[in-house]
Amino acid sequence: MTELLEKCTLAKDASFKMAGVSTVTKDNALDAIASALVSRADEIIAANAEDIKNARAKGTREAMIDRLTLTKERIDGIAEGVRQVRSLADPIGEVVKMWKRPNGLEIGQKRVPMGVIAIIYEARPNVTVDAAALCLKTSNACILRGGSEAINSNKALMRVMQDAAYGAGLPEGSLNIIEDTSRETAAELMKMNGYVDMLIPRGGKGLIKSVVDNATVPVVETAAGNCHVYVDGSADLGMAKKIVMNAKVQRPSVCNAAETLLVDKKIADKFIPVIFDALKEKNVEIRADKNAKNIYADVLDVTDEDYYTEYNDYIIAVKVVDGVDEAIAHINKYNTKHSEAIVTNDYAAAQKFLNEVDAAAVYVNASTRFTDGFEFGFGAEIGISTQKMHARGPMGLEALTSIKYIVYGSGQIRE
Amino acid sequence: MTELLEKCTLAKDASFKMAGVSTVTKDNALDAIASALVSRADEIIAANAEDIKNARAKGTREAMIDRLTLTKERIDGIAEGVRQVRSLADPIGEVVKMWKRPNGLEIGQKRVPMGVIAIIYEARPNVTVDAAALCLKTSNACILRGGSEAINSNKALMRVMQDAAYGAGLPEGSLNIIEDTSRETAAELMKMNGYVDMLIPRGGKGLIKSVVDNATVPVVETAAGNCHVYVDGSADLGMAKKIVMNAKVQRPSVCNAAETLLVDKKIADKFIPVIFDALKEKNVEIRADKNAKNIYADVLDVTDEDYYTEYNDYIIAVKVVDGVDEAIAHINKYNTKHSEAIVTNDYAAAQKFLNEVDAAAVYVNASTRFTDGFEFGFGAEIGISTQKMHARGPMGLEALTSIKYIVYGSGQIRE
Repeated sequence: MTELLEKCTLAKDASFKMAGVSTVTKDNALDAIASALVSRADEIIAANAEDIKNARAKGTREAMIDRLTLTKERIDGIAEGVRQVRSLADPIGEVVKMWKRPNGLEIGQKRVPMGVIAIIYEARPNVTVDAAALCLKTSNACILRGGSEAINSNKALMRVMQDAAYGAGLPEGSLNIIEDTSRETAAELMKMNGYVDMLIPRGGKGLIKSVVDNATVPVVETAAGNCHVYVDGSADLGMAKKIVMNAKVQRPSVCNAAETLLVDKKIADKFIPVIFDALKEKNVEIRADKNAKNIYADVLDVTDEDYYTEYNDYIIAVKVVDGVDEAIAHINKYNTKHSEAIVTNDYAAAQKFLNEVDAAAVYVNASTRFTDGFEFGFGAEIGISTQKMHARGPMGLEALTSIKYIVYGSGQIRE
Repeated sequence: MTELLEKCTLAKDASFKMAGVSTVTKDNALDAIASALVSRADEIIAANAEDIKNARAKGTREAMIDRLTLTKERIDGIAEGVRQVRSLADPIGEVVKMWKRPNGLEIGQKRVPMGVIAIIYEARPNVTVDAAALCLKTSNACILRGGSEAINSNKALMRVMQDAAYGAGLPEGSLNIIEDTSRETAAELMKMNGYVDMLIPRGGKGLIKSVVDNATVPVVETAAGNCHVYVDGSADLGMAKKIVMNAKVQRPSVCNAAETLLVDKKIADKFIPVIFDALKEKNVEIRADKNAKNIYADVLDVTDEDYYTEYNDYIIAVKVVDGVDEAIAHINKYNTKHSEAIVTNDYAAAQKFLNEVDAAAVYVNASTRFTDGFEFGFGAEIGISTQKMHARGPMGLEALTSIKYIVYGSGQIRE
């Protein structure tokens, strides 16, 4: 039996037991994991040092090495994250609704675990712990497949978590890491129908595309974010400047940062000089259309390709549009259905934008940067779904659950 | 441009307009469709006659030809189904919940259409109308791909629906049928990411497996049903007999019919002779394990393969088990996560079964035959999901919707 099939089998068996584990046991396991991460930090850091040595030998960039590095402080932070997950309400077992049929059947819709959740991810070893904690809290067995660059760290983190969780009464096999980090094994994991109930890819475009193209198990597509801010003719331009700068510059590398600015031609003459100066001051490269360049010449030309691009960088595309309708049409053509904002004081424009823009999160007078499980108040986040099926937008604990119909009868048969 | 790409493009464009269509317009369109189906029945029946002629020329079985055949009465029934969908409440636009964050952001979770729903189905032309009506009611554009055997009927039905719906104000391109019924085109449809938001296969095992294996767009897997009835030691045996007979015999061809009977050894001596006689009287072939045969010899031997089989026929597998734990273990090993029933008067056994059996619908003291959108009170059904993601069990209108977060701000930026 391959490692993959063995762990899938273990996970599936454990998933049935997980469904019956009490909230108290799960919370004790999370506490035990948090404590063990801290008390066994030296062991984790030693394994992490192997990964760093290997990365340096391969000439990995320092920024990547920094992402890979675990320190005592970072491990404390990871443990704190586990304690936060512990403190959340357990969603499993809630009967979402229950109703009675004319024939007397009482039908309830009950929240249950998904079963086995697989996560394929890259780089940062903290995902190993975050993902395991969220799956555990929702009574799911998990199969984690991290990248080769962090394999020693990931194995050490998993060993520490397994010891702690199984010691606290969690069924063996509920936490798994795939040690074979080959692409072939990842491809096999994507096709483990009957074992894997949901697969979540977390990483760059290439990884997500590979999962969407190859998986036969149900997938939640995450996190490409080509987000827009549209500044309407009626906007408070001071507010608009604050929101555009926040959406673009506060953290350009993340999926909810803005990539394109759309400016209503009604206020373009006034707003473009102000916002372009501000963006340039923050070293943002501006790629603008003809109408914007007519107002402010000293910027680059934008191409159609730019409008499709998620820069994740200090670059912004700019287009002057003829009101909210053209803004919506542009967004619905080029966006990735992630997060979109309008700045306006016009009631009808605000409502139109909210209704007609196709995206997971649509904002009036706020930065796109709020699309995040913590900012939304979910207390946790496993990723941001950009598909419409199952979960859309920030995925908290509920996104890791399914439902089951429980039916109480008294001898009913169908006529 | 291929027919497929053209219709996917039309559907995607129409889906944006559909999101803004009022309930009144949608209901008018459904009324117009129902009326047109009846008033243009002759045209539909003439097209259907072509399909029947072709089927006979190919030597198709009479049962299949009956499924294919449209009559005035059947068309009246189909139109009545459309009127029933019209009478349901419109789920689109409901704000499921809304909350305020400490920073003043007001975040609402609003029910929106999926966008474009594709359905690949076989045989019965009534699915063309049922599926289109459900997609229309939920503001989705649809792309239907029926089988070649019903293509003339499907084209006629679609023509009638398009004329009626577009005449009533629905955007052109919201209703589509793929006229090219080749497998290659079906395979392409499964990979139209960016156009198709959800794909639902409706048909036999082969079709569903092909879709699950090949699709890269999000899929809801439907309807294989290897369902069990477990008769517990504490059961009212009169009730148990009624439920077993109903689950097996009332309509054996459907997915919520029972395929395996599990009998608690405590009551096997008493129950097996009664139920086997009753099953035989209805010409049900019984395939039983050793312990059951020791009680009642004149039945066939069951194999492990039988336990995995969805007969959809007058055949039943039988196994004697040692109480509810063995019953649950058997079910979780062999079932397809569809519908499972226990007959019992033991409180603890009932609760254990409800909690631990992994299936879309779990019954105490009722027939598995109730797993159905109409029986559950949803007023409609597009299929029965046997996966855990997005929708599980009977899929009514809500299963054809997604959500969108609408966020009302007053200038908030992220710190």
